[in-house]
Amino acid sequence: MSHSTTITVRTPSATYDVEIAPNLLATIGSRIDALLNGALTSGKQRAFVVTSPEIWALHGKAFAASFPTAPIVLEVPSGEEHKRLATIERLAEELANHGADRDSLLIAFSGGVLGDMTGFLAAGYMRGIRYVQVPTTLLAQVDSAIGGKTGVNLAAGKNLFGAFHHPLAVYADTAVLGTLPDAQLRAGLQESVKAGIIRDRALFNYMDEHSDTILSGNIEALTHVVAASVLVKAKVVAADEKESGERMLLNLGHTLGHAIEAATHYKQLLHGEAVAWGMLAAIGIAERRAFVTTAEADHMGRVIRTYGPLQNFSANVGDLVALTAKDKKNRSGSRSFVLPIGIGDATVVRDVSPAELTDATEAMMELRGDFHRGQQVSA
Amino acid sequence: MSHSTTITVRTPSATYDVEIAPNLLATIGSRIDALLNGALTSGKQRAFVVTSPEIWALHGKAFAASFPTAPIVLEVPSGEEHKRLATIERLAEELANHGADRDSLLIAFSGGVLGDMTGFLAAGYMRGIRYVQVPTTLLAQVDSAIGGKTGVNLAAGKNLFGAFHHPLAVYADTAVLGTLPDAQLRAGLQESVKAGIIRDRALFNYMDEHSDTILSGNIEALTHVVAASVLVKAKVVAADEKESGERMLLNLGHTLGHAIEAATHYKQLLHGEAVAWGMLAAIGIAERRAFVTTAEADHMGRVIRTYGPLQNFSANVGDLVALTAKDKKNRSGSRSFVLPIGIGDATVVRDVSPAELTDATEAMMELRGDFHRGQQVSA
Repeated sequence: MSHSTTITVRTPSATYDVEIAPNLLATIGSRIDALLNGALTSGKQRAFVVTSPEIWALHGKAFAASFPTAPIVLEVPSGEEHKRLATIERLAEELANHGADRDSLLIAFSGGVLGDMTGFLAAGYMRGIRYVQVPTTLLAQVDSAIGGKTGVNLAAGKNLFGAFHHPLAVYADTAVLGTLPDAQLRAGLQESVKAGIIRDRALFNYMDEHSDTILSGNIEALTHVVAASVLVKAKVVAADEKESGERMLLNLGHTLGHAIEAATHYKQLLHGEAVAWGMLAAIGIAERRAFVTTAEADHMGRVIRTYGPLQNFSANVGDLVALTAKDKKNRSGSRSFVLPIGIGDATVVRDVSPAELTDATEAMMELRGDFHRGQQVSA
Repeated sequence: MSHSTTITVRTPSATYDVEIAPNLLATIGSRIDALLNGALTSGKQRAFVVTSPEIWALHGKAFAASFPTAPIVLEVPSGEEHKRLATIERLAEELANHGADRDSLLIAFSGGVLGDMTGFLAAGYMRGIRYVQVPTTLLAQVDSAIGGKTGVNLAAGKNLFGAFHHPLAVYADTAVLGTLPDAQLRAGLQESVKAGIIRDRALFNYMDEHSDTILSGNIEALTHVVAASVLVKAKVVAADEKESGERMLLNLGHTLGHAIEAATHYKQLLHGEAVAWGMLAAIGIAERRAFVTTAEADHMGRVIRTYGPLQNFSANVGDLVALTAKDKKNRSGSRSFVLPIGIGDATVVRDVSPAELTDATEAMMELRGDFHRGQQVSA
């Protein structure tokens, strides 16, 4: 028996379902058509799929065959370097040239980078059309496909330009995760560890106790982890749609994680790996503030490492601390930081001093050697 | 005594005031600071002005001097050709490099093109920051600065990419209109004629009876026309924020107007002039459908011409009709068209046939000779 779960995301501006189950792709077209009350079958409305060449080569045939008429496909090369306004403009011109109108539907069939872009394309095209997320990576399924954050990068930083625009529905096919490279699976699972740490002790314990099963790609275990992670995200987003408070908790590990990604030019680490490093630093600050006990800090560190190995990276402590000052969660000059409170709760503080942050960053940097005794640390 | 009017725009997503009066610029900085509860004076929040070199050369000194500390100025060259995502990206990078954060405020001190862009920049920067409109053209004061429509052009068409993002306030300084070229004033007044035709018979009559005073640039007459036009726009936007019905009425003359602008590559006519031509065509259709009497059609045509002369242009009837099929108000293939009902009311129809549109476009094209006997018609 395989799990199948539907979680409803309720926010002031939109309510929509996230369906989580293996093998959703086989029926994705008819599901979306039903969502549109048969408008694809009747030809009244048209669907456009935004995907990567890799995803489409793996799953395109089955995906397209599930639709009453094959949707028009717009391809974008994989990679963070394409997550820019120039790509959005190119895609928008293609939509216009294909005659897409306000009733057209976009489908993001992709990982998080392209999912964020497709959401923003939908937010801006004719000032807003509908879209559906069909996330193909664990990271996208548990995090980026849900909650309506869309956007692109600037040279000055990641995701600095975008919109809040919720999808009409999210379909997370956990069988697709079987085609994910192991490193991507592990990096994505760090976001689930994060979800457990900030809001779901049971999820954290499950991931602690069933790490072998999960990491072997067992579909039922993965489906459980995805569903539990989505539930955390849905609850947090429902409480704070536009990230004025509660939603910031989702950024545990992200302040320093983003700094590490920026310092390494987004080339050395996967996002989930950078977040894992950032979580270790945040746990360190929380421990020194006695927000968590040493036993809890060690426990969390152990589970994060279980879903490693955390790739090594080269960066300078001073640079990392300076980069956190650029975090877009900062307001009017004060630096926001998410810290765990025990395991299963967390809070946002604004008084982390530069010295405290430097200490935690140094401690985190020292951990790199522990994980990669074979590798040269070149910071 | 000069008029001073405050009109409140109320929509489901935002409520804000439009202040209309001469000589607002002298106090604009302190007005905005008050709106932010003194956050500019205290230095807690920062303001960034987006403007054109021409506007800034004329009014920049007075504008900047009215602020507790001079705002940072971002300049964009005038012209529709700069209304593209590339300009938005350049401005967003500048904001990031200046350290603009989520509490920063943008001020559009400009005409409609740059106002639309500044609104979109505010909509997208960090997924949304606040902005204020200080429109410097009549067209922007009576139309584009109000209602939250923001965006840029694509190669495929005008305003095809954008967002709904309302300003925090609008300050329409009617004394600034004294520096407008006469052709821009006349073109802008066509949008006020439009406002009168669709919703305000008294405004239409006022513009009919006081055309000499208005066209001479009399500040009290202009202030009255701006205030009455803003009131029409505010009421329509309040009734239909996202343009699913009522708000489409504001597009009287715009379906064919946009087609004329596209056919002439936005170079031969000002927007208001193209709209005037489009209104003449729409009035023609309305007359043939008996939505208006011949006397009413003639009366409206006469007032539109009073605020001319309407510049001649070169285009092909078939091209214009084909271009209307691309209008972004169209949904699922049907073409929307706004038609007046008498003077002071209007409606949206979806059944204008290609033949009906072709007849009306031909009749409109024939009018060109009447207005410009001296000019060669080169269609």
